[in-house]
Amino acid sequence: MAEKKPHIDWKIKVHDIIYEAETPAGKLFDIILLIAILASILLVMLESVESLDNQYHAFFDISEWVITIMFSIEYILRIISVKKPLKYITSFYGVIDLLSTLPKYLSLIFVGTHALVAFRAIRLLRVFRILKLVRFLSASNHLATALKASRAKILVFVLTMLITTIILGTVMYLVEGKENGFDNIPKSVYWCIVTLTTVGFGDITPQTPLGQVIASFVMIMGYGIIAVPTGIVTAEYAKQDSKMNDSDDKHKHSVSPIPPHPSEIDTNSLSCHNCMQEGHKDGAKFCFNCGHDLNT
Amino acid sequence: MAEKKPHIDWKIKVHDIIYEAETPAGKLFDIILLIAILASILLVMLESVESLDNQYHAFFDISEWVITIMFSIEYILRIISVKKPLKYITSFYGVIDLLSTLPKYLSLIFVGTHALVAFRAIRLLRVFRILKLVRFLSASNHLATALKASRAKILVFVLTMLITTIILGTVMYLVEGKENGFDNIPKSVYWCIVTLTTVGFGDITPQTPLGQVIASFVMIMGYGIIAVPTGIVTAEYAKQDSKMNDSDDKHKHSVSPIPPHPSEIDTNSLSCHNCMQEGHKDGAKFCFNCGHDLNT
Amino acid sequence: MAEKKPHIDWKIKVHDIIYEAETPAGKLFDIILLIAILASILLVMLESVESLDNQYHAFFDISEWVITIMFSIEYILRIISVKKPLKYITSFYGVIDLLSTLPKYLSLIFVGTHALVAFRAIRLLRVFRILKLVRFLSASNHLATALKASRAKILVFVLTMLITTIILGTVMYLVEGKENGFDNIPKSVYWCIVTLTTVGFGDITPQTPLGQVIASFVMIMGYGIIAVPTGIVTAEYAKQDSKMNDSDDKHKHSVSPIPPHPSEIDTNSLSCHNCMQEGHKDGAKFCFNCGHDLNT
Amino acid sequence: MAEKKPHIDWKIKVHDIIYEAETPAGKLFDIILLIAILASILLVMLESVESLDNQYHAFFDISEWVITIMFSIEYILRIISVKKPLKYITSFYGVIDLLSTLPKYLSLIFVGTHALVAFRAIRLLRVFRILKLVRFLSASNHLATALKASRAKILVFVLTMLITTIILGTVMYLVEGKENGFDNIPKSVYWCIVTLTTVGFGDITPQTPLGQVIASFVMIMGYGIIAVPTGIVTAEYAKQDSKMNDSDDKHKHSVSPIPPHPSEIDTNSLSCHNCMQEGHKDGAKFCFNCGHDLNT
Repeated sequence: MAEKKPHIDWKIKVHDIIYEAETPAGKLFDIILLIAILASILLVMLESVESLDNQYHAFFDISEWVITIMFSIEYILRIISVKKPLKYITSFYGVIDLLSTLPKYLSLIFVGTHALVAFRAIRLLRVFRILKLVRFLSASNHLATALKASRAKILVFVLTMLITTIILGTVMYLVEGKENGFDNIPKSVYWCIVTLTTVGFGDITPQTPLGQVIASFVMIMGYGIIAVPTGIVTAEYAKQDSKMNDSDDKHKHSVSPIPPHPSEIDTNSLSCHNCMQEGHKDGAKFCFNCGHDLNT
Repeated sequence: MAEKKPHIDWKIKVHDIIYEAETPAGKLFDIILLIAILASILLVMLESVESLDNQYHAFFDISEWVITIMFSIEYILRIISVKKPLKYITSFYGVIDLLSTLPKYLSLIFVGTHALVAFRAIRLLRVFRILKLVRFLSASNHLATALKASRAKILVFVLTMLITTIILGTVMYLVEGKENGFDNIPKSVYWCIVTLTTVGFGDITPQTPLGQVIASFVMIMGYGIIAVPTGIVTAEYAKQDSKMNDSDDKHKHSVSPIPPHPSEIDTNSLSCHNCMQEGHKDGAKFCFNCGHDLNT
Repeated sequence: MAEKKPHIDWKIKVHDIIYEAETPAGKLFDIILLIAILASILLVMLESVESLDNQYHAFFDISEWVITIMFSIEYILRIISVKKPLKYITSFYGVIDLLSTLPKYLSLIFVGTHALVAFRAIRLLRVFRILKLVRFLSASNHLATALKASRAKILVFVLTMLITTIILGTVMYLVEGKENGFDNIPKSVYWCIVTLTTVGFGDITPQTPLGQVIASFVMIMGYGIIAVPTGIVTAEYAKQDSKMNDSDDKHKHSVSPIPPHPSEIDTNSLSCHNCMQEGHKDGAKFCFNCGHDLNT
Repeated sequence: MAEKKPHIDWKIKVHDIIYEAETPAGKLFDIILLIAILASILLVMLESVESLDNQYHAFFDISEWVITIMFSIEYILRIISVKKPLKYITSFYGVIDLLSTLPKYLSLIFVGTHALVAFRAIRLLRVFRILKLVRFLSASNHLATALKASRAKILVFVLTMLITTIILGTVMYLVEGKENGFDNIPKSVYWCIVTLTTVGFGDITPQTPLGQVIASFVMIMGYGIIAVPTGIVTAEYAKQDSKMNDSDDKHKHSVSPIPPHPSEIDTNSLSCHNCMQEGHKDGAKFCFNCGHDLNT
């Protein structure tokens, strides 16, 4: 490792600060980034409140510029410090990072474009990376596996529900009609979804006796079939849970009744400098994804 | 098989295109049919929007005629290509297919009859056949079995809920009375169903303190007893799941901990030319239902 | 059995018709009774609809008299044909039967008393006896056992929920105040129950930002803690289910994987002439409750 | 025990009455305290009803003083009779007890301060101690363990839900805008929470077609993902349950299939005079926490 140039060293340092969570500098960076994101979201929310925007418009504007410039610098550093910048730029988080910096710059071009606010809210997705929420879920919960296993069934369930709502919505449109707020079939289907999911806004309600009978049927159905996705997820989750425990028992002959899941003890929070793959085993020397030396 | 007439060959070809999903022609047919159904439903929905109907009435009318004629041709081909046409006509999907073609023809006779719209929405049920959703559910999910096993219990549950709502609805009618929107007992029962299922439209709400106390009781009850159908379905589903796995283990001595369900690997998507039975084993030569040669 | 007097024979015949469901006469009686009860409930409901009552008042009045007299005769016959009339009169269904006959007679004394309608709705509870719903639930479902086992936990859950709603209701009263519809603490607690159970009528809604933040907290809490009763009931139900299966396996060494539950095969629908106890074993000669000969 | 002074004896007697639930005097004390708390809460609620307060203001005032003085005496006795008063004062229930007495005294200083009502509602938390609800839950239910085990997962779930609502709320704000009640992003996020949790007040509802499509998506999502916390809690609860049963089986070789949980049979309701630790084994002579003689 003696042939490494100081230039590379500097890059690696930056990489470690930005991408790693284990080192003190990395931790500090993550915390500052988290605060910046939350502050930025708070700004977006408060700016939309007219009375506050009138009073503190200048403050909001300056703060947003500060955060935008911070994010821009971070984005550039991320590109520089990664070995395969293109891979980062086209990755999910790469796109999110770019979208996080753009809105304020674009507001200079498209003056008064309201829709840029939505881009700023997208910044929130970056929280997932910092808190490693997705990984946390998939590693220790089996929840992701359970949801993936029951994905097809839930899709069929949602499709069946949608077909039901369209047919029942059409019936309600015929029964209640325009005079009771069921203006057209799409609105009637919307009412049906509102009712079946037990949300029940009450902006449109059946007025005729027959309409109320059908509505009662929809409600009882909605109340009952919530059991279906719940049943699927619960059963799958319990299955994933016991399966994982079984395989642990076989591999480890552990004495403790509930051995920690391998994912919890074996992996570290390092990420490959080359391909940014995470979830390497403790003590692993090469990236299991691209074979790059993890210690360079 | 040399004795087959070219006439029969033509019929079998049509049968394969319409009823089978495995051949390229069959797949294409299914996709076109699916698009036609969805387009037709979209037409029904958009037609009901007054502003759109005023603008595009001619387009909607012509499109509906095109789809109706397409469905009519398909219906006739289905009857011709099946060996037992009467069985198809009287089957569930046979009736649905017929109802899918009728509305536009009937609209020539019964001019301005609104209710025909509902018939057109019934077309959506045809989606189930194309996507084979029901079969998908019953074959690989155990969900159908679980729901069937818990059917009686859920019926008792719904009946108990209905009796409860009638009694509580009567009480609410006496407590709140006409002046607070509880005009009569049926409406009061309707309110009770709205509340018990946690839908809560808010078009009728209790105003007296006593009424609000009873309403609170109804709400807590409704919030709590949702656990009952969920509990039943979840437990039954988990049972079906483990039972299926157990029987697999016994029959196959498979090494993998979770062997694929027989239904997933053993059956093909062929349907008998004679009785239209589906779910034949891979490599089966004769229909398990009527004994007809599957390869003719 | 030669010493039985014809008088007693007549009584036993009546008993068999009224209390048994197995004999043709008993079945017919049950069906007629069921129709009478449902007709009577329908009458109560339709009577409360002003427009219908104005038009068909005489018909409703006469029908109610016919049903009342039918129920009265049935009540007298039940008393006569049972060996221990006092036990029947003071039993749950005895009281219900009496209350089912009273309202119309009382309406002669208390002219225009509205509250008698509620007594008439109580008749619905008689449906449980005819359909033997409760027994059906408890015998073959384990649901009753599961609910009984989780009763204490659900009570604690409901109590905790009530305490939470009272405290949060008080806070909401202070935050929102009278000007936003939170007139007093009881009403505020009522709103809290409406929100926590995810019913959400919308008749009272928070208007201040702080109130909406607290409301959001209440809603997420309500959405989340529905998992608690569901989890309890599901787990208990699954436990009862597997326990019952286990004990069956031990006692019977049955070959079939899921033997029918003893309750389903061993008991008959006979009821003791003396104490009216139900659920006797098939072939039992004496009542397991009072020792009376079941065949007299 | 001859060296104990009468002064100490008096203290111990008071301690036994206040802290123990087993002795007749202790039971009576608990019941009186429970009634006083509930009466005090009822007072708080009724006082807030304007019409009642106008009529019975003097009665409410005097009753509140009586209860306040009662609670004050109890608080002082609790401090005196405990060996480590400071530990009691700084403990959770110590703070609650103090807050229960303060409001009325403070109302003399801060005349007309409304917010003191909230302090009085905090008294309700004392009910938990008397009914030992929390202990009941944790000892025999495994529910607490299940909830603790799934705490992290539920937190991630809630966080994901919050991020989803913020992003969707921003989108809805852009789609619907001020003219349809979505005044600003915080209010829009509030609407999103109301909808996702299936509460559905209906005070703000989408009016544009696109808004209703997004709302439908939010509702179906909310309806579906309720399966996630339910699945987690159910599976964890079932696991805790079976684990507890397994360990019982190992330790006791009990014949009964479901042995009573040790916590239910082994502990008594004594609390240490010195450190107030509860949950001592039946027959224990010394506090397992501080080693103090339990019988002094």
